[in-house]
Formats: sequence, C-alpha cells, structure tokens
Amino acid sequence: MCVMANGIERPLDLLNASKGKEVMVQLKNDRQFVGVLRAFDIHINIVLDNTKEMHNGEVRKNLGLTFLRGDTIIFISPSSTSLNE
Amino acid sequence: MCVMANGIERPLDLLNASKGKEVMVQLKNDRQFVGVLRAFDIHINIVLDNTKEMHNGEVRKNLGLTFLRGDTIIFISPSSTSLNE
Amino acid sequence: MCVMANGIERPLDLLNASKGKEVMVQLKNDRQFVGVLRAFDIHINIVLDNTKEMHNGEVRKNLGLTFLRGDTIIFISPSSTSLNE
Amino acid sequence: MCVMANGIERPLDLLNASKGKEVMVQLKNDRQFVGVLRAFDIHINIVLDNTKEMHNGEVRKNLGLTFLRGDTIIFISPSSTSLNE
Amino acid sequence: MCVMANGIERPLDLLNASKGKEVMVQLKNDRQFVGVLRAFDIHINIVLDNTKEMHNGEVRKNLGLTFLRGDTIIFISPSSTSLNE
Amino acid sequence: MCVMANGIERPLDLLNASKGKEVMVQLKNDRQFVGVLRAFDIHINIVLDNTKEMHNGEVRKNLGLTFLRGDTIIFISPSSTSLNE
Amino acid sequence: MCVMANGIERPLDLLNASKGKEVMVQLKNDRQFVGVLRAFDIHINIVLDNTKEMHNGEVRKNLGLTFLRGDTIIFISPSSTSLNE
Repeated sequence: MCVMANGIERPLDLLNASKGKEVMVQLKNDRQFVGVLRAFDIHINIVLDNTKEMHNGEVRKNLGLTFLRGDTIIFISPSSTSLNE
Repeated sequence: MCVMANGIERPLDLLNASKGKEVMVQLKNDRQFVGVLRAFDIHINIVLDNTKEMHNGEVRKNLGLTFLRGDTIIFISPSSTSLNE
Repeated sequence: MCVMANGIERPLDLLNASKGKEVMVQLKNDRQFVGVLRAFDIHINIVLDNTKEMHNGEVRKNLGLTFLRGDTIIFISPSSTSLNE
Repeated sequence: MCVMANGIERPLDLLNASKGKEVMVQLKNDRQFVGVLRAFDIHINIVLDNTKEMHNGEVRKNLGLTFLRGDTIIFISPSSTSLNE
Repeated sequence: MCVMANGIERPLDLLNASKGKEVMVQLKNDRQFVGVLRAFDIHINIVLDNTKEMHNGEVRKNLGLTFLRGDTIIFISPSSTSLNE
Repeated sequence: MCVMANGIERPLDLLNASKGKEVMVQLKNDRQFVGVLRAFDIHINIVLDNTKEMHNGEVRKNLGLTFLRGDTIIFISPSSTSLNE
Repeated sequence: MCVMANGIERPLDLLNASKGKEVMVQLKNDRQFVGVLRAFDIHINIVLDNTKEMHNGEVRKNLGLTFLRGDTIIFISPSSTSLNE
C-alpha cells in the first residue's frame, strides 16, 4: 500500500505510483485538496476522486470528482508517505 | 446521469464525461461559475451554457452561454459527483 | 439573432457564432468591456467594435474599435444569451 | 483617415490598419501610452513613435520612439475610432 | 559525499549530482522544503523524499515523498555545500 | 546619431537601430535602467553597458554590464528620441 | 579579469564571458544573490558557486552551490564591471 521511493526515476513516476491512492494537493492560493488520484498528464492537470477541500485540517467542502489545472499546483504528496517514510 | 470514476484514464476524460452536465468552475480570482459544460479544448478553454456566476452560494449574475479562458481556471467539478460519490 | 448552444462542439465555435453580435468581455483586472465581436484568433486576442468600457453597469469610456490581448481575458459572453437562455 | 471595421477578419488586421495612425495603449500596471503605431509582431510587441505616457488624460512623459513588450498590453485602440465609430 | 563544482557544465548537472542527497528548495510563496532529491525533469519538476516543510529553521510539516512543480521553485541548493564550499 | 522612425518595419528593428546607443528600460517592478544597448534576442533579453539603475531621475546604483531578462521588461526607449522626436 | 563589452553580440555572450567570475543576481521577489557563475542555459537557469544571499549589502545566508530557476531572475551583472566600466 506504500509508495516506494527507489522506483522513482522521473518526477511523473511518483504520480504514476500514486494512482488509486490518496494524495494531498497544495494549490498556489492556499487551497488544499485531499482525494484519490485518478489521472494526470504532462501539464500536471490531475483528476481527484472523493475530493475534499481542506482548511486548517478540517474538511471545508466535498467536491467528488474534480479536474485540477496543473498550473495552480505547488505540490502533490501521497498521504501514505507523509508520516512514516 | 452520474459520472463514473473508473472510466477516467486521462484528466480530459473527466471533462469529456461531463459534457451536457452541470459543472462548478472555480476561477483564480475567487469567481465561481455553475453551468452546463458544452465544450472544452486542450487549453481547458470551456463553454458553459446557462452560466450563473455564484457568490457565497447565491446566484450573482446570469450569463447564458459563456466562453471561459482556461488559464484562469483552478478546478472544474461535475455537480452530480459533489455529494454522493 | 440568438446564439445556439447545440451547434457548439469546440470553445471557439461560440466565438465564431458570436461574430457581429454584442459580447461582454471580462478582463482579469476587473475591467469589463461591451462591444460587437469583429475578430478573434486562437490566442483569444479579439477585436471589438463600438467598444464601451463598463464600470458597475455604467459606460465609463467609449473606445470604438479595440484590440484586446487574449491573456487578460477571463470570459466572453454574448449579450443576447445572458437573460433568456 | 478612419479605420474600417468591415475589413477586419483577424485581430491583427486592426493593428495593420492602424499603422501610421495614433493609438492608445493600455498596459497591465495602469500605464497608458498614446503614440503613432509604427510596427507590431505576433507577440503584440509594438513600436510607437512620438510616444506620450499619459496619466488621467495628462501627458506625464515624452518618450519618442518606444518598444513596448506585448505581454504587458491589455488593449490597443486607434484614437480616430474612439469617439465617432 | 560532497557535490563538486568543477564537474558542472550545465545547470541540470548540479541537480543530477545532487540525486540521493539532501537539498533545500525555496518556493516563490516563501515556502521552504528540505528533502532527499529523488528525481527531476527539464521543467524542474522534482520529487523529494523524506520531505520536511520548514518555517524559520523549524520543521512545520512532514510530507514524505512529494512532487513539486517546477514553476513555483526559486532555487535548489544541496545542503552539503551550504557551509563549507 | 538619431534613430529614424521610417526604417522600422518590425518591432525588433528599433532595438537593432538602438545598438550602441543609450536606452531607457522600464521593468515591471518599477525599476528603471539607463545604459548603452549592446545586444538583444527574440525573447527581448538584453545586455546593457554602463548600466545605471535610476530612481526618480537619480542614479541609484552603477551596474556596468548587465544582462536583463526579457520577461520583466515593459518598454525600451532610445534616449535620443525622447525629447525632440 | 574584466569582461569586455565589445565581444558581446547576443545577450548570452555576457553570461558566457562571466563564467568563473562573480556575478550579482537580482530576483523578482527582492532577493539578491552573489556567487561565482558556473553554468547557465537558454532558460537562464543558472548555477552559482559560493552563493551568498544578500540583504542591504550584508550576507544573509551562505548557500554554497545553488541552482536558480531562470524565470525568477530580473538581471545578472558581473561584479567586476559594476564600478569601473
């Protein structure tokens, strides 16, 4: 269930390994989303499923399936790696 | 009537599956639009029909058919998935 | 005289159908223009005729023929569709 | 001496028809220039002659020949069309 | 263990030499990350492992594996070179 | 010694005619530079010689040879044309 | 040891002539760096050695080898030319 660091040769490999897993997505305007990564492309446009907009650790809005444009994204981090990597 | 998550391989697949359905579109400058997705292209330029500009959940303006430039868009979420996905 | 939603397959189809008609153009810096759409290109550079810069629903300046650069545009909406679509 | 709207098929046609004529150029940072359009390219880089930087309708600075980078431009409007189009 | 300056002919050579080493990454919005550089591409998209978001020299958040989009990055500096180069 | 307006067909012609002459360069963040134009490219990256950073008409800093990135430039104006065009 | 202005035909020639020499780099967000230029590419991504982040003429931080992304750079000036050009 955990994403391996040693299989990652190019940045998109991490996104590929995170498909079907929960990720945290930080946007430029302080917005934060948590959801299951369904798809991405080379522009880092992504689709999240079961998307929740977060604010200070609390769920602010349930958005379901959501298309996020890549150019507003700062970082994407798989949730499973954030504590015990 | 609902958009399936399992048919989505690339981000644009979600937009394709959302054609003819109501979507919520969040822009960079805090503007929010709700309308029926009629068309999109690879720049994420979109056309909404029956467009409503929203403000705090209230309709602020009726815009009818509207062309939205992709580079101002943060996310697009089909309304039917936002509660019971 | 009204723009049909069902003939629109790509976003630029709406702009094409709006040629010779009055459109409302919202720019990023809160500027708003109303004028007759004369021309557009793939960068969404447009030419408006009989252009009026609007401010809170009032005409602020008459600009006649005006070239608007695409990258400052948020949305373009044909006036005829904004009320009774 | 006046620029015809009916000969404009593409946005750059208006710039071409405005060569040798006075235009008003609005930049993103509230700067406004008036001058005679000498040249432009597809990036909307332009050269104005007899350029005046304007502020609230008053001449602020005389700049003579000036190269303006396209990506700071919001709109370009030929002066002859701004009142009696 | 230290990164050599004399083997660097192109900017990406430094990133290549820093793979598997701890780097400090400064983003545009004052965010700062420390982590082990796993991967990068020509857009300067990078993957950090064991990522820590820093604030005034203190760890603010543990993010594990993280994909950072290149266009938000100001600079990347390998930690081993920052004191005794 | 003066730059002719009638030889300018494309915007870069003005920069070419200004080589070896003093120009004033206005940047986006209110910085202003005066120097002798040595080189430019299609991105409007330029090299100035004997560069002075100006502030309210006063020299703020002497920078000698300086490479300026094109995307921060608003306009470039040859000094010889700014008064008696 | 000094950089010649007369050998510069294209902007990147100055960067090439500055390799191995100390340069001052001004970034968009008021950050300033001084270091020895080791490498650059056409995006103006650069690598500095012995990098110091400066603030009001004082060293704020020692960064050693640092990769700086081109799109945050305003100007690059070789230190040897800034006083006696």
